Amino acid sequence: MNSIDTQTLDPKLDLTFERIVDTPRELVWKAWTQPQHLKPWFCPLPWRTIDCEIDLRPGGIFRTVMLSPEGKEFPGTGCYLEVVEYERLVWTNALLPGFRPAMMQVDASVDFLFTATIQLAAHGAGTRYTATVRHGDEAACRQHTNMGFYEGWGIALDQLVAYARTM
Amino acid sequence: MNSIDTQTLDPKLDLTFERIVDTPRELVWKAWTQPQHLKPWFCPLPWRTIDCEIDLRPGGIFRTVMLSPEGKEFPGTGCYLEVVEYERLVWTNALLPGFRPAMMQVDASVDFLFTATIQLAAHGAGTRYTATVRHGDEAACRQHTNMGFYEGWGIALDQLVAYARTM
Repeated sequence: MNSIDTQTLDPKLDLTFERIVDTPRELVWKAWTQPQHLKPWFCPLPWRTIDCEIDLRPGGIFRTVMLSPEGKEFPGTGCYLEVVEYERLVWTNALLPGFRPAMMQVDASVDFLFTATIQLAAHGAGTRYTATVRHGDEAACRQHTNMGFYEGWGIALDQLVAYARTM
Repeated sequence: MNSIDTQTLDPKLDLTFERIVDTPRELVWKAWTQPQHLKPWFCPLPWRTIDCEIDLRPGGIFRTVMLSPEGKEFPGTGCYLEVVEYERLVWTNALLPGFRPAMMQVDASVDFLFTATIQLAAHGAGTRYTATVRHGDEAACRQHTNMGFYEGWGIALDQLVAYARTM
């Protein structure tokens, strides 16, 4: 029952980056899996995450609500697919809680489908952090690139690292 | 990390049936999880299942090819979401292997998205067998009903029970 590995990556469909951070992976895990510790860093300022719901098990809900600087709310709901403590977190917006197939979500924070993986490995006192998003077609992948995947997820990680020092 | 339960069932979106069969659940499991034991019973005759690929782990492939009596092939590819030996098998066609979001599959055996669960419990020497399919909207649920979900999955189960006597 091992998890799927990175051999399924497709450069035309997937986006990925890896960074070494000095945050212990237990804290990175906590920041990703507890709403009160996720909201402070999850989207790049001046956007804010104003709500978050987490049921940390395969099929459990992962819901966030982002607030734009103009005051518009962007909800997003998905479910977890794999939960391996301190190591691996996988979720998708292609399935709703209970693994129900999702219809495209109007007014959601993104209007394409993706599956995201956060992979953590100890690296000295810190963490080797690998984030990957998989898409169903090249259009969705391009759209995610154009909305600033690398910058957005990178800034969020910077915010996580800074926040973790206060945890 | 417990699996999601049946509390997420929605009568407008989901189809389910339960039957007691005299097949031991170890054999039911084998019939659902090994290609050579799935092909003999998986679709109601005179349709046949001419190919099957199974990688039995979350994110692993579940692919079948059905052949109509007229000789037309209907492939379908999805991935497993939960694999709990002898108890619970969950898969979806909303995600491809590696949890990649699926695009609608042209010429596939079905043209709507669903997540299916087979739940098995020992019942005397036999099995309490519960099959459930979840859909994203009422249209998909109606379509699945109209294409004969109850009859089709019921006949397939009869075929499984008959085949299991020869295993």
